[in-house]
Amino acid sequence: MSEQSTATAFVPGHVTGFFSAHRTDDPATTGSRGGGLTLSDGVRVRVAAAGTTRVVLDGERVEMEPVGHVLDAFDATAHVTVESDLPVGSGFGVSGAAALGTAYASNTVFDGERSENDLVRLAHVAEVVAGTGLGDVVAQAHGGVPIRVEPGAPGHGVLDGVPTSSRVEYVAFGELSTAEVIEGDTTRLSRAGERALADLRERPTLPHLMWLSRRFAREAGLLVPEVEAVVDAVTDAGGEAAMAMLGRSVFALGTGLSDAGYDPQVCETYPSGAHLERE
Amino acid sequence: MSEQSTATAFVPGHVTGFFSAHRTDDPATTGSRGGGLTLSDGVRVRVAAAGTTRVVLDGERVEMEPVGHVLDAFDATAHVTVESDLPVGSGFGVSGAAALGTAYASNTVFDGERSENDLVRLAHVAEVVAGTGLGDVVAQAHGGVPIRVEPGAPGHGVLDGVPTSSRVEYVAFGELSTAEVIEGDTTRLSRAGERALADLRERPTLPHLMWLSRRFAREAGLLVPEVEAVVDAVTDAGGEAAMAMLGRSVFALGTGLSDAGYDPQVCETYPSGAHLERE
Repeated sequence: MSEQSTATAFVPGHVTGFFSAHRTDDPATTGSRGGGLTLSDGVRVRVAAAGTTRVVLDGERVEMEPVGHVLDAFDATAHVTVESDLPVGSGFGVSGAAALGTAYASNTVFDGERSENDLVRLAHVAEVVAGTGLGDVVAQAHGGVPIRVEPGAPGHGVLDGVPTSSRVEYVAFGELSTAEVIEGDTTRLSRAGERALADLRERPTLPHLMWLSRRFAREAGLLVPEVEAVVDAVTDAGGEAAMAMLGRSVFALGTGLSDAGYDPQVCETYPSGAHLERE
Repeated sequence: MSEQSTATAFVPGHVTGFFSAHRTDDPATTGSRGGGLTLSDGVRVRVAAAGTTRVVLDGERVEMEPVGHVLDAFDATAHVTVESDLPVGSGFGVSGAAALGTAYASNTVFDGERSENDLVRLAHVAEVVAGTGLGDVVAQAHGGVPIRVEPGAPGHGVLDGVPTSSRVEYVAFGELSTAEVIEGDTTRLSRAGERALADLRERPTLPHLMWLSRRFAREAGLLVPEVEAVVDAVTDAGGEAAMAMLGRSVFALGTGLSDAGYDPQVCETYPSGAHLERE
């Protein structure tokens, strides 16, 4: 049942402040626990049925493995146009957003018979199999300030949230390989991440999430010097900032980065998860 | 920890198309299964700390039992200002929205230490105890076009969704008592509701949800003659409409009611669940 030949979905960005990695033999139950923020800066994905597949990201033809996996699940070929407000490879969940947006839009274009949970599961599995992320997809499907309580796709994973909304500022200094970190030894970071999660659940507020994220970055040994300097500068100016996991990026609440003299991108926490746009 | 003396939350409206009722000894596991639409027309709730409690709905002082239960859980008194885009008692989930909005705003004003799931649970229990609804709160916390797969508050209930967005039109002819129906014999309606849910999960599309809702209203014996006439008129004009459970109201996709010659209210499905507004 093809009701439309094109469809567009919006998926919010997502920065993780802390996480633990959980691998199983099944990509649907593999995932991460942790806390982060979804962002009004996000990714718009347009899918158009076509005889061959072509993925264009911000005007340039690219390979995006998770997007390919999603199209394969629909047994479909398509022109996929991805427009991102956010830098790629910098810890904002662009690959997860591209996969999830492709799933939502493809469902409309190609058969329209999957539920939201089906589509989230499909995109989560695509991202895990590609090694590009463990928890962005479920967080981006949830929106707000998601707490990943249990890892994995819908049916396995469990989410909660910090009830809040905030202006968010961010700066990005370049890429950091997600695959290298999450496919390496994650014992130390996962121990730090589990501790942060338990503490956040005791007191689920946004300032506490930021503080726990800074502690996590130190304990997990993931803090990059140039990022540390910026986080410290924001803290010294009385603000709240943390490192985006995994990217050479800093996110801050309110006017934290501006107050410390930086020239950040500005957005907000996003109240909604991924959704189709009306044509 | 009182960070602000006032806070405001927005909660989307919710119309149920079909449902089954599930009662247990515990209001947190009591609830409904079913399908419906959340609406961009909704309820804005402002909570201000005050020495005595006063609830004002659209300019008039009222008693709203679920709102009282929520404030009691915070051991607080407050001035609660509820502004509703939607008619009360007409099947749009205004009482659930008032309870959920009060929970979100009170958390900011009074202690700020509860998670989203905690707040949804609190409002769900308040609504069940007051007898004003079984499933609106969890649907309004989810947003979109929620499918209530398992009944009850977070930790018990399970939600999915129809991945779609649509213009929605509605007309309301007056009140119908929710308590009278859900506290009576629900055997027949629950059988019809379970059948509709199983069929929707097989093919989770919006037109299918509307068709199943019409079948449910007939099978459950809940169709009011004046509502039936309008639903039939929309169908005759080639549109999709159904009765809001529980109210003397009709909701339709796209321009269904306009095309049939009615003068409806117009809104959209709402992509987000309940959320705080930035002050």
